[in-house]
Amino acid sequence: MHNLSKNSFFIGIDLGGTKISTGIVDTSGKILAKTKLPTQAQKGPEFVIDQIVKSINLVIKKSRLNRHQISGIGIGSPGPLDTEKGIVHFAPNLPGWKEIPLKNKLESKTGFSVFVDNDANLAALGESWIGAGKGSKNLICITLGTGVGGGLILNGEIYHGSEDSAGEIGHITVEPSGPKCNCGNNGCLEAYSSATGIVNRTKEAIKSGEKTSLKEPITSKKVYLEALKGDKLSKRIMKQAGVYLGIALSNVANLLNLDMAIIAGNVAEAGEIIFEPARKEIKKRAIYPANKIKVVPAKLGTDAGIIGSARLVMIKKFFV
Amino acid sequence: MHNLSKNSFFIGIDLGGTKISTGIVDTSGKILAKTKLPTQAQKGPEFVIDQIVKSINLVIKKSRLNRHQISGIGIGSPGPLDTEKGIVHFAPNLPGWKEIPLKNKLESKTGFSVFVDNDANLAALGESWIGAGKGSKNLICITLGTGVGGGLILNGEIYHGSEDSAGEIGHITVEPSGPKCNCGNNGCLEAYSSATGIVNRTKEAIKSGEKTSLKEPITSKKVYLEALKGDKLSKRIMKQAGVYLGIALSNVANLLNLDMAIIAGNVAEAGEIIFEPARKEIKKRAIYPANKIKVVPAKLGTDAGIIGSARLVMIKKFFV
Repeated sequence: MHNLSKNSFFIGIDLGGTKISTGIVDTSGKILAKTKLPTQAQKGPEFVIDQIVKSINLVIKKSRLNRHQISGIGIGSPGPLDTEKGIVHFAPNLPGWKEIPLKNKLESKTGFSVFVDNDANLAALGESWIGAGKGSKNLICITLGTGVGGGLILNGEIYHGSEDSAGEIGHITVEPSGPKCNCGNNGCLEAYSSATGIVNRTKEAIKSGEKTSLKEPITSKKVYLEALKGDKLSKRIMKQAGVYLGIALSNVANLLNLDMAIIAGNVAEAGEIIFEPARKEIKKRAIYPANKIKVVPAKLGTDAGIIGSARLVMIKKFFV
Repeated sequence: MHNLSKNSFFIGIDLGGTKISTGIVDTSGKILAKTKLPTQAQKGPEFVIDQIVKSINLVIKKSRLNRHQISGIGIGSPGPLDTEKGIVHFAPNLPGWKEIPLKNKLESKTGFSVFVDNDANLAALGESWIGAGKGSKNLICITLGTGVGGGLILNGEIYHGSEDSAGEIGHITVEPSGPKCNCGNNGCLEAYSSATGIVNRTKEAIKSGEKTSLKEPITSKKVYLEALKGDKLSKRIMKQAGVYLGIALSNVANLLNLDMAIIAGNVAEAGEIIFEPARKEIKKRAIYPANKIKVVPAKLGTDAGIIGSARLVMIKKFFV
């Protein structure tokens, strides 16, 4: 079965709430062709699945490959899922998705083998394969976006946990009596270090009378840009996002003794203003040698999902 | 190589700062004979290693087995170590231990194959094999003793991390500006939920003028017993130990989606007074389905180390 050749190609798909990103990837991780289609999630699962099939056909055409050169399809899906069976239990951003057999549906509609995993896990897999985590055996890849997601690579493989829900670093408690998170808990990392968290904490501070040069409507990007310009409130909020990221990472480091934490997502673009306080907390809070964990920015940007999904096919079909 | 027979026996050793516990274990996990010798750690590594050899000879004699019936030796050691090479980097409770090649020394002194791992990892392995974690694939085993130790079983195997230091749940930050821990950090789980933490928090409260029926010298057992009798301060301290254990476990659950957390050690004997607030926090703080993690008491008591060490030999020699 170990017959992976340089002429094998793989389709990787990143299924999001607003768009479907699809690419054809070679054995080195190079994307030969890619395409983006709107998900139009409100039209329901059957429509979305047909959009996925459309994006597959589009990208094959674009690549000028023959169908028989393609070894299979990997797809990263949001929401709790059964990765073995390829069933999406539900997905908050995809209305109507309930126990959708994504793998079976795509297999019968395309004729290809299909492998499904969590989108955060596949971004982690992509980064660990040819991105910021290349050569690393144990890592976490964290996406600081609207929410905070995470994927774990342990001993070189995606770690799923008992019910496919591992990696939820966004809901680690970093401040027991901290502000309410969307999940119902208090003081989750997500309540401080996601875009939503940054905006909410900023609004709170303004409401309580703190002075700022920020103008409505508040976005996390604006808070970051005003922090760079020296706005005191914005600086405090961004630093706070970094400190709590560092507390969460110290916990992860002590527990899992990882090589690195890869930070992706829009908020990560703020760079050192978040990274530096995070590293400081790790130095203070993680014990030796777990405190050697490196905190680095992601390298693959929005392609991580496509590349990781393609890599999943290589692993599943060729045991590479 | 898969020739594990019912007539194979294994020596398991738990090397502690005050005593060496050694047992002979059969393929079902039954201990046929065991012995305890004082470590006399102050006499240095060479003496301690000779004590270990003495305990091995004693227990073989006690068991009436022939040496050729014994397949090898497993030993759980404290301190950061290289589990592959069987080298103990250092051990806070074993004076003079610095880069001690425990595996090689014991192999040349006994003629048996020797396998070394962290004591907390082997307790976890024992509990997962035939103890409270039987049948579970993903678990953490936490020892609430003088300190707080932890061992992780992920996908049925000991998870070591990049430098053999995974499982340090005792140093998870549960209260960022909490009391100082021995490790230098503030607000570690160990500062609240270990025996030392319980005593220190109690002394602090007494110093600050809180009334109590507790009498000097304070021990964690006394705090527990007074809590049962209704002493308000003791009740608060024990509950606090449970709440912070629950916060740490919520973090572990969200990150690793485990089947269960097994709680061992002296402090765990307090039972529901700690377990109940811990479970409550998990319900509040861990997300579905990670919040399904079971919190259960350990089953093997002080034998967990012996049994886990013996199991390590089975795994290493027979790939069971």
